Amino acid sequence: MDIMKNSLEMHALNKGKLEIKSKVRIEDTYDLSLAYSPGVAAPCLEIEKDPSSVYGYTMKGNSVAVVTDGTAVLGLGDIGPEAALPVMEGKALLLKKFSDVDGFPICLNTKNVDEIVQAVKAIAPTFGAINLEDISAPRCFEIEDRLREECNIPVFHDDQHGTAIVVGAGLINALKFTGKNKDNIKIVINGAGAAGIAILKLLLQLGYKEILMCDSTGIIYEGRPDGMNPIKEKIALSTNPENLRGNLFDALQGADVFIGVSVANLLTEDHIKAMNEDPIVFALANPNPEITYENAKAWGVKVIGTGRSDYPNQVNNVLAFPGIFRGALDVRATDINEEMKLAAVKAIASLISEEELTEDYIIPKALDERVAKVVAKAVGEAAIKSGVSILSQQPELTKNLVI
Amino acid sequence: MDIMKNSLEMHALNKGKLEIKSKVRIEDTYDLSLAYSPGVAAPCLEIEKDPSSVYGYTMKGNSVAVVTDGTAVLGLGDIGPEAALPVMEGKALLLKKFSDVDGFPICLNTKNVDEIVQAVKAIAPTFGAINLEDISAPRCFEIEDRLREECNIPVFHDDQHGTAIVVGAGLINALKFTGKNKDNIKIVINGAGAAGIAILKLLLQLGYKEILMCDSTGIIYEGRPDGMNPIKEKIALSTNPENLRGNLFDALQGADVFIGVSVANLLTEDHIKAMNEDPIVFALANPNPEITYENAKAWGVKVIGTGRSDYPNQVNNVLAFPGIFRGALDVRATDINEEMKLAAVKAIASLISEEELTEDYIIPKALDERVAKVVAKAVGEAAIKSGVSILSQQPELTKNLVI
Repeated sequence: MDIMKNSLEMHALNKGKLEIKSKVRIEDTYDLSLAYSPGVAAPCLEIEKDPSSVYGYTMKGNSVAVVTDGTAVLGLGDIGPEAALPVMEGKALLLKKFSDVDGFPICLNTKNVDEIVQAVKAIAPTFGAINLEDISAPRCFEIEDRLREECNIPVFHDDQHGTAIVVGAGLINALKFTGKNKDNIKIVINGAGAAGIAILKLLLQLGYKEILMCDSTGIIYEGRPDGMNPIKEKIALSTNPENLRGNLFDALQGADVFIGVSVANLLTEDHIKAMNEDPIVFALANPNPEITYENAKAWGVKVIGTGRSDYPNQVNNVLAFPGIFRGALDVRATDINEEMKLAAVKAIASLISEEELTEDYIIPKALDERVAKVVAKAVGEAAIKSGVSILSQQPELTKNLVI
Repeated sequence: MDIMKNSLEMHALNKGKLEIKSKVRIEDTYDLSLAYSPGVAAPCLEIEKDPSSVYGYTMKGNSVAVVTDGTAVLGLGDIGPEAALPVMEGKALLLKKFSDVDGFPICLNTKNVDEIVQAVKAIAPTFGAINLEDISAPRCFEIEDRLREECNIPVFHDDQHGTAIVVGAGLINALKFTGKNKDNIKIVINGAGAAGIAILKLLLQLGYKEILMCDSTGIIYEGRPDGMNPIKEKIALSTNPENLRGNLFDALQGADVFIGVSVANLLTEDHIKAMNEDPIVFALANPNPEITYENAKAWGVKVIGTGRSDYPNQVNNVLAFPGIFRGALDVRATDINEEMKLAAVKAIASLISEEELTEDYIIPKALDERVAKVVAKAVGEAAIKSGVSILSQQPELTKNLVI
């Protein structure tokens, strides 16, 4: 099975993967008069009178823009907005498949942060939420921050938070399976790009304490002279309390967990041997991980997760984003905040009971249809509780909404 | 049948009219590996190598953005982008229904011309063409002109050209039916907004010579002191060769054709009596025409067309835009130029044979499924012939395309 060749053929045969479908019948003049002129004036006038009714009469409340500028697509880098379109269509397709959300690709013909923010704000009225995708760091941080601030609909950069949420869930279960204790484990994150930073932030929020972060220069520490930037200065302050210095091998001494968002085939047997017993490894470099499943097993890794669909414990953000958007849309959230992300982590982890956990099953399968449902419910409830849902202010509306 | 009430209920029941549908199967991990990671990298890399292959591997070549800023929606005026969404969904639904084009609503949260142009240019990579909709005059002219200049995909403002094309087709058949001769008829257009100006331009291109244009101040003539603007100065130069002055009643003396894009119930019996024998009237004010069908018949109008679906000869731009976009997309046109518009006029008119013509059947029915097909074919051929199709330069590609 040549996946690349077959994928190319499938894309050519179908000319892409998405199409538009009508939810209503148009068979006669009367149908036309309801869906279009003159009847369509009725919902237009209602929305003009009460802007929030746009959620009741239009597609807005179920639509998500899948927005990219094509600068960090898969592991392929800056391939441009047109070349990114197959990925965005794929993303939209998964939104529909797993959570019945109507995603639509918006590939932007600009890399300028101001122009990206302007364009997304301009198109927001059609959409219930914005999924930022495959935008390179550090631009992605500013773009997400500004859009969250300036839009009244949720904005979520999946490459950061989607991956972090699934890693967070996998880590909960891996600790449970290995009997390690959250309060006294040492974690090493290798790679200080968008995903690495988001993983770090989430783990800090989940209460993990001893975390070292490495980049290609080595361990990040306060006052490191080389390869720093404002974000890494902040990382140095919130990690590495003993101000350790050295390379990845030094960092891994006695570590319980390695999380790689870096490059293929990085870890040697020596790296693994340097770790604490029953090491846990999330090797997420794409498409080839920092360590193969086979080497990990041969060298004594207890639990290994990768991004690959052909090995166990796939860290696939399809476990997170469909349910997160479903939950946010269902309760008409105005943001996807930290409470909602943490709720998603716990919901994903909860799907595998203690009895079901094995070294090859700490993360639910990508096609497990239960996942999006429990994530949506947990995320919606967290939105209400944390005050970012319309239901937080107007609980009497509950009966009209999905959950 | 209360159309307004039923339309509102239909919109609320379905929460809008559009959804996203996958064209490919996602049932197992292998499907997922073709449609998404890792297989999706294959079309991405091909498009990076050869940007034009985006038309082969993605939805781009069948996608049209239905773009509005909500400033001139139906006859409702500036109701804003959210309130415009039901109309844009309706438009997209008609594109799908009549010509299998995947339209998607883009309602813009800005009325600034520069920002609109920027936003549309930014989102262009996803789309094969841009349909501008319900943008108020005179901004719509500049927006369309700039986007046609600056985008490499076709840009078409339907409120101008769609209406003009259907009126042009109706006029050809009305003249045939009444035995009037194109070369010696007098036409009065009332209303100098976007639609009126587009109708004027098209009629001039179709070779009509004696045209008067009126606005609320009366006949437009060179040097008129009141209510002029740069566009009306140009209108004065290209119409009214005898520099006539006066009001609508004066303009209608001996006129063969009245085309109204103005206000309801404007025409009296005196207006009609002032016209030449067998008068032809297109009364397009929306939702209530300049003259009712009943009055037109009672006062001696020979052929009456309106915008209404409940009377004969409906001037509905659904007869034009689905076929026009289909034709433009099929031959990968870079523009929708005058040749393509004229081809659409003739194709629509051609669907009713001389024997079939009656005073109540000079324009095909809105639901006539033949229309989009003949329009698409004629428009595609005109694009090739006029040099704006990829096939104009590379005829060997013909076999890979639809027509």
